[in-house]
Amino acid sequence: MIASQVASLSLPDLARQTRQAARKLATLPAEAKNQAIEAIAQALEVAAPEILAANAADCEAAQTAGISSSLYARLKLDESKLKAAIAGVRDVGRLADPVGQVQIHRELDQGLVMKRVSCPLGVLGVIFEARPDAVMQISSLAIKSGNGVILKGGQEAVRSCEALVRAIHTGLAQTEIDPAVVQLLTTREETLELLKLDQYVDLIIPRGSNSFVRFVQDNTRIPVLGHADGICHLYVDKGADIRKAVAIAVDSKTQYPAACNAIETLLVHKDIASEFLLGATSALQAKNVELRGDDRTRAILNIAAATEADWSTEYSDLILSIKVVDDLAAAIDHINTYGSRHTEAIATEDPKAAAQFLAEVDAAGVYQNCSTRFADGFRYGFGAEVGISTQKMPPRGPVGLEGLVTYKYEITGDGHIAATYAGPDAKPFTHRDL
Amino acid sequence: MIASQVASLSLPDLARQTRQAARKLATLPAEAKNQAIEAIAQALEVAAPEILAANAADCEAAQTAGISSSLYARLKLDESKLKAAIAGVRDVGRLADPVGQVQIHRELDQGLVMKRVSCPLGVLGVIFEARPDAVMQISSLAIKSGNGVILKGGQEAVRSCEALVRAIHTGLAQTEIDPAVVQLLTTREETLELLKLDQYVDLIIPRGSNSFVRFVQDNTRIPVLGHADGICHLYVDKGADIRKAVAIAVDSKTQYPAACNAIETLLVHKDIASEFLLGATSALQAKNVELRGDDRTRAILNIAAATEADWSTEYSDLILSIKVVDDLAAAIDHINTYGSRHTEAIATEDPKAAAQFLAEVDAAGVYQNCSTRFADGFRYGFGAEVGISTQKMPPRGPVGLEGLVTYKYEITGDGHIAATYAGPDAKPFTHRDL
Repeated sequence: MIASQVASLSLPDLARQTRQAARKLATLPAEAKNQAIEAIAQALEVAAPEILAANAADCEAAQTAGISSSLYARLKLDESKLKAAIAGVRDVGRLADPVGQVQIHRELDQGLVMKRVSCPLGVLGVIFEARPDAVMQISSLAIKSGNGVILKGGQEAVRSCEALVRAIHTGLAQTEIDPAVVQLLTTREETLELLKLDQYVDLIIPRGSNSFVRFVQDNTRIPVLGHADGICHLYVDKGADIRKAVAIAVDSKTQYPAACNAIETLLVHKDIASEFLLGATSALQAKNVELRGDDRTRAILNIAAATEADWSTEYSDLILSIKVVDDLAAAIDHINTYGSRHTEAIATEDPKAAAQFLAEVDAAGVYQNCSTRFADGFRYGFGAEVGISTQKMPPRGPVGLEGLVTYKYEITGDGHIAATYAGPDAKPFTHRDL
Repeated sequence: MIASQVASLSLPDLARQTRQAARKLATLPAEAKNQAIEAIAQALEVAAPEILAANAADCEAAQTAGISSSLYARLKLDESKLKAAIAGVRDVGRLADPVGQVQIHRELDQGLVMKRVSCPLGVLGVIFEARPDAVMQISSLAIKSGNGVILKGGQEAVRSCEALVRAIHTGLAQTEIDPAVVQLLTTREETLELLKLDQYVDLIIPRGSNSFVRFVQDNTRIPVLGHADGICHLYVDKGADIRKAVAIAVDSKTQYPAACNAIETLLVHKDIASEFLLGATSALQAKNVELRGDDRTRAILNIAAATEADWSTEYSDLILSIKVVDDLAAAIDHINTYGSRHTEAIATEDPKAAAQFLAEVDAAGVYQNCSTRFADGFRYGFGAEVGISTQKMPPRGPVGLEGLVTYKYEITGDGHIAATYAGPDAKPFTHRDL
């Protein structure tokens, strides 16, 4: 019923409907939102056979069309993956409500009181690739944060996404929340149209390749929460503990090389270069990492040459470039020149060197003696990750529910007017925090 | 010396120089920044005769060119205005340092500790109109927040701005801070070039007309802190105290009609319309406010008709449109349709109506029983106002120094790697706030 209604609406009308529904959702207390999330989880459980059948049809079509094995792996939804995703929905229900938090509470003058209170953004536009499990995760995060959401999934996953959204609507229909808070777009043309809807959509979250994120940023006036490249470094200082540094290098490169928080370049202080590199090389090569070095590295190791292009390349693969640097300042300079401001680490036992690195490196994450792979919302204790932002303005780095809310200033007075506080006889403000 | 060096640089080279200088500034403690601000204040005092002479030359040229009287008033810098601006510089020195504040302090696991710490954005690009006093205010705010700044002033004020920046450079030359943190552009062509420098500039702050702000937003990938329209409303509820409501209406419209936080439209509940409008009209007309009403208003008042266009017009002048509405919901709906999400007020003694208005109206400021003119960084107790943002993502509303900083996540470990926390034998995180 709902799906067919939606199909007959133009995209702006659909977005307006979502905004209307989201306005009601925005004012609901945490309990109502948590009940709705539980209703969604139950409806997904009931609809599991239907969802799995839809996914099987998507998978069959995808195989016929010959999609890549990695895309297929993301598309495929089996019973255990669906169960885990539903458990994830319930996890979101247990997170603290990000809405209604009083950030500032201040008396401006007697009887004139200001509160800054967190509130939902409004409507999110989320564009993602094949993975249908994103539908469940994003819908629950949107509802928890009091926002409507317009989802645009990959074409390959269209049957799965439709079955999932149908179940979500069935669940929401049992609750106070209008099912129109969650909408699904299914055609590629709608992506561009969505990016133009700045009147109804408050934040775009693109989940996909770097080039896709950049395309989105260049084609919308709506704020975008997304990261472009992840070019991360590990700098092995002359004060490093070699054993720790090798373990961190191996983990940062190989624990999940396709991740944006994996390192692409190793910077090594000249005084420790021989000792460290001879130790690290065997450990890295044992994990099948291809090494490329600058001239000073190649004077120590018999590896291929790194070119200028290597310093600004995100390999997303088992490849690592290595450069020997004169000192800490040269390492910081290299990182601030070539890094993508994502996550940067120093291995050192020298607290002064660490402090300088953490202060001077310009990145969302600056680490001492640990792997860059810790850059993640779950690992930071945010409970859920909306995305990782490499923009400099907040929200920056791994973003939890906090990235889906904003705030408003509420002031209550008793007939207070500004003229009282202006001119030669201006009354002073009290500005007393309560 | 410095000015002539700058003149010989290309804009990208100049911006790179500012970024380098800003990187050093970013790590300085509050005392160093405060000393620099005091040095600037003293240098401005010493250079006062030179600054006033430069401004007199600007004013003479502007008069010859026949600029408007309001622009001339903003351009003109006399001794008392300069004194006040220098006092404003010293005020910024006394504000709390927005940099280095620990926002999160959390143990992720034993020996693995995360801090989220506020830090400067980097380099600001500020484009403003005639008013030369903006140079002093913005430079001190930038230094206090640890940022470099590239200023682009109005062509009319070029001599004044040059004299001011020369004094600022003289002051900074006595301190730890590289004078290159403050740069001045003087030609119109450089504005567009500045907007393209996303590699070196982290935030653009346009100060000017709505159409100029929109032009900037449409021509840059750099985040923009700025507001477009200010279409604010006062809704007079049936539960309003008429005396208070009239005073708030008059203040909100007339205390400074050109301000973005002045109201453009008055919404009045039908049950109170006659009584309120007959009282308010004389008070508004005594202040020379031109009134335009919808049909129901004109059944009460003999005034001109408001057209559909009036509801979405920012008059910035002594004009006020009036609409009679059926109820609170209709008022909220009108505001959420036509308002610019700036500042919206309700006059009512009914706490339930006020709560609904504050919760459901989508705006940066939602007020009960006070003037919309309170929407201002100084009045909110922020000490200084960087600007007012009508964007929905934070920073929203009046923005203080907080809008000029971001944060980074610092993690220190002891050789911790992500592999320890992954897979079937994953170690759990402790996630304990410290």
